Amino acid sequence: MFRSGKLIRFHHCDPAAIVFYPQYFVLFQELVEDWFAEGLGIDYAEFISVHRVGLPMAKIECEFLAPSRMGDTLSLDLAVERIGTTSIVLGVRGSVGDQPKVRATLHLVHVSLASLRPVPVPPELRAGMMRFSPPDAQA
Amino acid sequence: MFRSGKLIRFHHCDPAAIVFYPQYFVLFQELVEDWFAEGLGIDYAEFISVHRVGLPMAKIECEFLAPSRMGDTLSLDLAVERIGTTSIVLGVRGSVGDQPKVRATLHLVHVSLASLRPVPVPPELRAGMMRFSPPDAQA
Amino acid sequence: MFRSGKLIRFHHCDPAAIVFYPQYFVLFQELVEDWFAEGLGIDYAEFISVHRVGLPMAKIECEFLAPSRMGDTLSLDLAVERIGTTSIVLGVRGSVGDQPKVRATLHLVHVSLASLRPVPVPPELRAGMMRFSPPDAQA
Amino acid sequence: MFRSGKLIRFHHCDPAAIVFYPQYFVLFQELVEDWFAEGLGIDYAEFISVHRVGLPMAKIECEFLAPSRMGDTLSLDLAVERIGTTSIVLGVRGSVGDQPKVRATLHLVHVSLASLRPVPVPPELRAGMMRFSPPDAQA
Repeated sequence: MFRSGKLIRFHHCDPAAIVFYPQYFVLFQELVEDWFAEGLGIDYAEFISVHRVGLPMAKIECEFLAPSRMGDTLSLDLAVERIGTTSIVLGVRGSVGDQPKVRATLHLVHVSLASLRPVPVPPELRAGMMRFSPPDAQA
Repeated sequence: MFRSGKLIRFHHCDPAAIVFYPQYFVLFQELVEDWFAEGLGIDYAEFISVHRVGLPMAKIECEFLAPSRMGDTLSLDLAVERIGTTSIVLGVRGSVGDQPKVRATLHLVHVSLASLRPVPVPPELRAGMMRFSPPDAQA
Repeated sequence: MFRSGKLIRFHHCDPAAIVFYPQYFVLFQELVEDWFAEGLGIDYAEFISVHRVGLPMAKIECEFLAPSRMGDTLSLDLAVERIGTTSIVLGVRGSVGDQPKVRATLHLVHVSLASLRPVPVPPELRAGMMRFSPPDAQA
Repeated sequence: MFRSGKLIRFHHCDPAAIVFYPQYFVLFQELVEDWFAEGLGIDYAEFISVHRVGLPMAKIECEFLAPSRMGDTLSLDLAVERIGTTSIVLGVRGSVGDQPKVRATLHLVHVSLASLRPVPVPPELRAGMMRFSPPDAQA
């Protein structure tokens, strides 16, 4: 499992002084970039601009369990749920202290940026990512 | 059904020159505001600031079917799927011409802004909204 | 002079329930796109993706005169102040009713997207734009 | 002087794969929050929500000297240029390595959130901030 802490800032919050929900998805994008850099040892910018591949979202399911507020540190946990030929399914849990805030499943597709068509996840990327799947998912 | 057209602009797009997916959720928020103003005849700003209620997202499911590009006009259709005591479930379909781009189910909660706790949807708001549900959903 | 009205929406506003100032710059970007489409008769997306040129900001000066609130219609006026070989200087005034809200000078550069280096503003683009300069600026 | 490093991320970048300029202002907002937390020892969220004061922007001047790209670490330096009765003027310099990228002057106003009217900067806040002014500015 990979974990990254995100400070909830003024610019994430709406007139109700809680996180405006699309900002959670920006934070999930940051989480994936942090996972590449710190968890997989891959420079995300290079992954995109040199290898000319990307990971657009194909499907997302997300539950917002409780509001997060400015000054909260949102702890985001990422686990690999499944990797198909061209797809990567990630589970994300977000909490502040021991209070769950958000829970999501992200269905990413590994695409060529030139064509925006799915291309197979390379074996070494798959192997690196699978280290972040729970033991039962690897069975 | 309520429909609103949204021009895809430079600021919605990412380095792959397609809509960055969290921006779809900002457009869905605009769609709900347009629906209030044009479909329900309710000033959304007044709804929030005078009545001190809000409609935070409790759950969202969204499929991204094809990328949208700068200059596209994304046609967004909104239908009421279900209204519970304090919850409102909306179905959203987005397309450019006859090409489907995005499909989502939004689960909103009607809350008091003072407490951020759910409060019942008032009968007149419910009645107004139900005019946007498909005939079979009203059966 | 070119004018475009912008509804201030929920997502533009911060926890103080007024426009978060970077959102004014997103609205100025929308204004420039509207000016291209409606004032100059140029498809902005095509301008960028077909002609492979862009208009990055080189310098901006902006005064925020009074807060704008959700539900306000911000009327944005654009005038061409000066066009150099590769630069375009625009003046922007924003008001709600007769109350001034924001005043800015935008210094854009006409660049090739391939090199991100300045390239001369083509004569026909310059001529079209100059129709939006105040009479004394054309003297 | 206060310094904070900001990773340029995918979501900061536009279709030209460089930072979309309004995102610099979001990063400046983060810089001010970091300065409060790390430089002044003040919890910014508490400053706003408990003391009910804010620091809206009154005026900004900004030069964009060279584009920043995804993966860059933008080093942001903040110095206090001047503190008036109710105003705070900050100078910001941003660079990647030894290449200057952005230079700005931010004119903030210290306001009551209840009235959105200027209120005097408290002496202890002023004293803390003045430690970040260059020696000649304190003369």
